[in-house]
Amino acid sequence: MPGKAVVLLSGGIDSATALALARDEGFEVYALTIDYGQRHRVELEAARRVARSLSANEHKVITAALRAVGGSALTSDVDVPKSETAGEIGEAIPATYVPGRNTVFLALALSWAEAIGATDVFIGVTAVDYSGYPDCRPDYIEAVQRLSDLGTKAGVEGTPIKVRAPFVNVPKSQIIRTGLRLGVDYSLTHSCYDPTRDGKACGKCDSCHFRKKAFAEAGVKDPTVYAE
Amino acid sequence: MPGKAVVLLSGGIDSATALALARDEGFEVYALTIDYGQRHRVELEAARRVARSLSANEHKVITAALRAVGGSALTSDVDVPKSETAGEIGEAIPATYVPGRNTVFLALALSWAEAIGATDVFIGVTAVDYSGYPDCRPDYIEAVQRLSDLGTKAGVEGTPIKVRAPFVNVPKSQIIRTGLRLGVDYSLTHSCYDPTRDGKACGKCDSCHFRKKAFAEAGVKDPTVYAE
Repeated sequence: MPGKAVVLLSGGIDSATALALARDEGFEVYALTIDYGQRHRVELEAARRVARSLSANEHKVITAALRAVGGSALTSDVDVPKSETAGEIGEAIPATYVPGRNTVFLALALSWAEAIGATDVFIGVTAVDYSGYPDCRPDYIEAVQRLSDLGTKAGVEGTPIKVRAPFVNVPKSQIIRTGLRLGVDYSLTHSCYDPTRDGKACGKCDSCHFRKKAFAEAGVKDPTVYAE
Repeated sequence: MPGKAVVLLSGGIDSATALALARDEGFEVYALTIDYGQRHRVELEAARRVARSLSANEHKVITAALRAVGGSALTSDVDVPKSETAGEIGEAIPATYVPGRNTVFLALALSWAEAIGATDVFIGVTAVDYSGYPDCRPDYIEAVQRLSDLGTKAGVEGTPIKVRAPFVNVPKSQIIRTGLRLGVDYSLTHSCYDPTRDGKACGKCDSCHFRKKAFAEAGVKDPTVYAE
């Protein structure tokens, strides 16, 4: 009988589906959103809508001032890259990479998991349709598990918190099909790195390109309202 | 020729000495203090005094709302344990343990290191005279190094940021002797978990006991003003 799980919830496709999956496995789900000073604040609202819609037992928004660190187009005044060819996976790590973001997120998730006695932490990263960020890959997730084994009270006492990235090898189109089966309403989610003032997706950044491509590959209508 | 190093600076003995050591090795030192909602706010003031006194190139205080997570006597309303026998290293992990604190700190330090192009991150943890926290031990530090190798842009590009815990196997008395040689003024540092309103150390918590013991073993006068 599963107990409690902390699920990192950004408000995007992957994390919303991870939340639905954890709930489907029978966990009490504790959704955790990190307010890291992201420029796209509409993400936080999307996370709230998704947590409510999927009946999370609790939804906590924690502040971690990554903006103070700088170094990314997502938290500073660097322009978000846009082009008709964005969305291709390249070799280079792009300007939207936030240094150490997932490590900070997972550290906070492990912290909350310890505090409430959760057995599992879910993160919806995927290394398939992604932007080339280093902290989304299977060997990175294994390194975080090792940190959970060694750096938490639960781990030292013999029952480490499991770090689960169920979609790490799953294409985004398949994540969407899983989510639809589990009742995720993707019209509530948000992916765009650079939304308009009224919250519409730009349709041109990497994240919009991946989203469009995933819905097309899944053969499902994309419910997103794009600015263009 | 060393370049830049990020040094986690709590304002206590170990981190002040780590800062002095990094400077002595020739690094430009970027001191990082995490405001995690600790009850002992006087720590933040101590960190500022130490950074100034040791001529850090920059001192940044970043907020990470660990208080929102709860689960520790250091951030919540649980009493800080006190007794005449506090300060003994026991088997149990004590109530002052903040779940995942060092992982959150190191994640933020790695993030800042990436953003400024630092090659090293210093953390002043010691597994010798410590309170039994799981995230202060050599194998934990190795796990963080692995995370740096795999989860950062620098690591993926072949020049991982080095995670350095120079005192992890060093008794606190020896840390103090090193610091005195390097010009650390320990009267500026703060260790107490539960200071009085006017900032005096309680003299009774684990951290005060370890501090007193370390100065005694080092054969050096403890400059701390204790409430009793």
